[in-house]
Amino acid sequence: MDYFAESLSLHRKHRGKLEITSKIPLETKDDLSLAYTPGVARPCEVIAEHPEQAYELTMKGNAVAVLSDGSAVLGLGNIGPAAALPVMEGKAILFKQFAGIDAVPICVQVDSDEHLIAIGKAIAPTFGGINLEDISAPRCFVVEEALQDIGIPVFHDDQHGTAIVLLAALMNGAKAIGKRLSDLKVVINGAGAAGSAIARILTCHDKDSCAGVSVADVLICDSKGIISSQRTDLNRYKKDLLQFSNKVHRSGSLHDAVRGADAFIGVSKGNLLQASDVRTMGSDPIILAMANPIPEIMPDEARRGGAAVVGTGRSDFPNQVNNVLAFPGIFRGALDARAVRITSNMKVAAVHALAEAVGEPTVDRILPDPMDHTVSEKVAAAVRDAANM
Amino acid sequence: MDYFAESLSLHRKHRGKLEITSKIPLETKDDLSLAYTPGVARPCEVIAEHPEQAYELTMKGNAVAVLSDGSAVLGLGNIGPAAALPVMEGKAILFKQFAGIDAVPICVQVDSDEHLIAIGKAIAPTFGGINLEDISAPRCFVVEEALQDIGIPVFHDDQHGTAIVLLAALMNGAKAIGKRLSDLKVVINGAGAAGSAIARILTCHDKDSCAGVSVADVLICDSKGIISSQRTDLNRYKKDLLQFSNKVHRSGSLHDAVRGADAFIGVSKGNLLQASDVRTMGSDPIILAMANPIPEIMPDEARRGGAAVVGTGRSDFPNQVNNVLAFPGIFRGALDARAVRITSNMKVAAVHALAEAVGEPTVDRILPDPMDHTVSEKVAAAVRDAANM
Repeated sequence: MDYFAESLSLHRKHRGKLEITSKIPLETKDDLSLAYTPGVARPCEVIAEHPEQAYELTMKGNAVAVLSDGSAVLGLGNIGPAAALPVMEGKAILFKQFAGIDAVPICVQVDSDEHLIAIGKAIAPTFGGINLEDISAPRCFVVEEALQDIGIPVFHDDQHGTAIVLLAALMNGAKAIGKRLSDLKVVINGAGAAGSAIARILTCHDKDSCAGVSVADVLICDSKGIISSQRTDLNRYKKDLLQFSNKVHRSGSLHDAVRGADAFIGVSKGNLLQASDVRTMGSDPIILAMANPIPEIMPDEARRGGAAVVGTGRSDFPNQVNNVLAFPGIFRGALDARAVRITSNMKVAAVHALAEAVGEPTVDRILPDPMDHTVSEKVAAAVRDAANM
Repeated sequence: MDYFAESLSLHRKHRGKLEITSKIPLETKDDLSLAYTPGVARPCEVIAEHPEQAYELTMKGNAVAVLSDGSAVLGLGNIGPAAALPVMEGKAILFKQFAGIDAVPICVQVDSDEHLIAIGKAIAPTFGGINLEDISAPRCFVVEEALQDIGIPVFHDDQHGTAIVLLAALMNGAKAIGKRLSDLKVVINGAGAAGSAIARILTCHDKDSCAGVSVADVLICDSKGIISSQRTDLNRYKKDLLQFSNKVHRSGSLHDAVRGADAFIGVSKGNLLQASDVRTMGSDPIILAMANPIPEIMPDEARRGGAAVVGTGRSDFPNQVNNVLAFPGIFRGALDARAVRITSNMKVAAVHALAEAVGEPTVDRILPDPMDHTVSEKVAAAVRDAANM
């Protein structure tokens, strides 16, 4: 199937993907008097007096805003908020399909980080949570940080959702080949939002992002090679990465980085590695090549180089690593717990629930099927319990 | 029926009224590949290159934001955005029911007029229009004005929707009793957003709000009495009203104002007038008492005073004057025309379409039934044609 042409025609046929409907009847004057004036004044008064009742009497308790400025959309870059809308609508319907959540795409044209922060703060009364999406680094860091105390969870899925799914994949990949996670030397290619969140969760550097176990070492590469103290071109976000990566002070290219590594995680772009690179890695290497639609290395090529476990973002190969395994359940759990933020405990709970959803992992099955609806229920239950602890 | 208790229980049972669903299937991996990655990249690219395609490929072409800061909610006042949400959800489902529009409630906590303006500007890429709702004066004037050039229609329904429906009601009321609109002396009680918009449209003062015919004179009252040049307590918005009201330099109380008037329009609060006041009015007076749930004067009392035509906001009396007769059709027409703003012509077209939808008006039927779905279609067609002129 030509996904691109088919998708365009599907979007054109339906004029987008999302619809807003009423849960209650609106056929008679009485219906109108209950849904709207005069009756609606009563729930308004109750919420004015008891604000927490908004969770019981309005959409808030089941609603998530999918907020984006369109500055880092898929692999397409800064295409702007209007062009980002198909992605946010897609995300919204995934929230509904996998977790019964009513998600609202809000693509915004903003002038500054502060403008986006002001919007996030302002919309908090309407929603039970905010999923930040496709926002470029470093804005995504600044905005998420600034919105942690607005009373509802604010979660940048490209960072934490990706990190959670990849850690679960790496855990089960290691288990499938009989290695211990704590022994793994990992190379991450991509030093943006996703790459840095993955490095943080893998290394337990932040109390706020730690799954209770850390890998042996992480090397992070950007387009210029390994992030190292020898580099003179690092911004402050990349310099920060040195606090928890590259313990061994390696420098050089991506090809240098993978030499001897146990695992490669790509959140970058297609066709960067070859079988010959994989051959330089340690025994039974794990390759998680997330670039979409063309992975950093194709599965066949990786196996030719000796890879023991290969995962990609694609549905047409085994081991699809897809954020849909995490974000619906994470927000479902957070909404059910009325959490005010997504804590480290909740992220860790999501990782373990996701990893355990597989049962006994094999090299061709390190994660559950993304279409398996029971996964989000398991993740939600674990996240809700962690929120309530 | 106890609308208040029933409404509270309805809201609690359903946890709000609105649901967000998918228009397309999401059962298989292929479905996921078309709705989301990788396929969704194609509609994104098309919009990035041809921004107007957002109307064809996303929710934008059928979507309206219902934006409120919760500062003037129904008769409840400044109860805040969380407590305003039941009203905005109600509005959203009316948009769907009466015009097939996907409307999103966005209740915002803002610090200033500028903050609300910044939000309105920012969300424009996602929506085909913005319905401002339940925002206090003068903020509603400042914000609506500032958002007229953002490329999509921004319409404060409490002002213009109300004015449109009331002018249609007054036209048909006058017709039913054989008077000419241009002969009417009208008293408006309420000098806020609704009252001033009604005065503007009745007097054709603004090119931007004129239905091609104006009444003989308008007196506007606030809680202190007639707005007159003798008053020393008027803010600049109330002073502006003198440019097109009170030609005859009357002063005094509401009771003084109605003496000799042909019509009374109340957008204020309940139980302000008695039959004895109506007896002081001109022959066959028209009373449109919109305060909800208790009108400025109850219909029986008004008739006891000799009122020829009585309308209220309530569904349990004849002549229900309800904004739902206007706003769904106005936005439907504007969206269908891809209008960038709601012009004077479009408002006038809505007034006439609404008035004509009655056929031959009588004193007990000056407006169509609010539950009549054909009305919004007629209004939409007229508004769309006016937008395209």
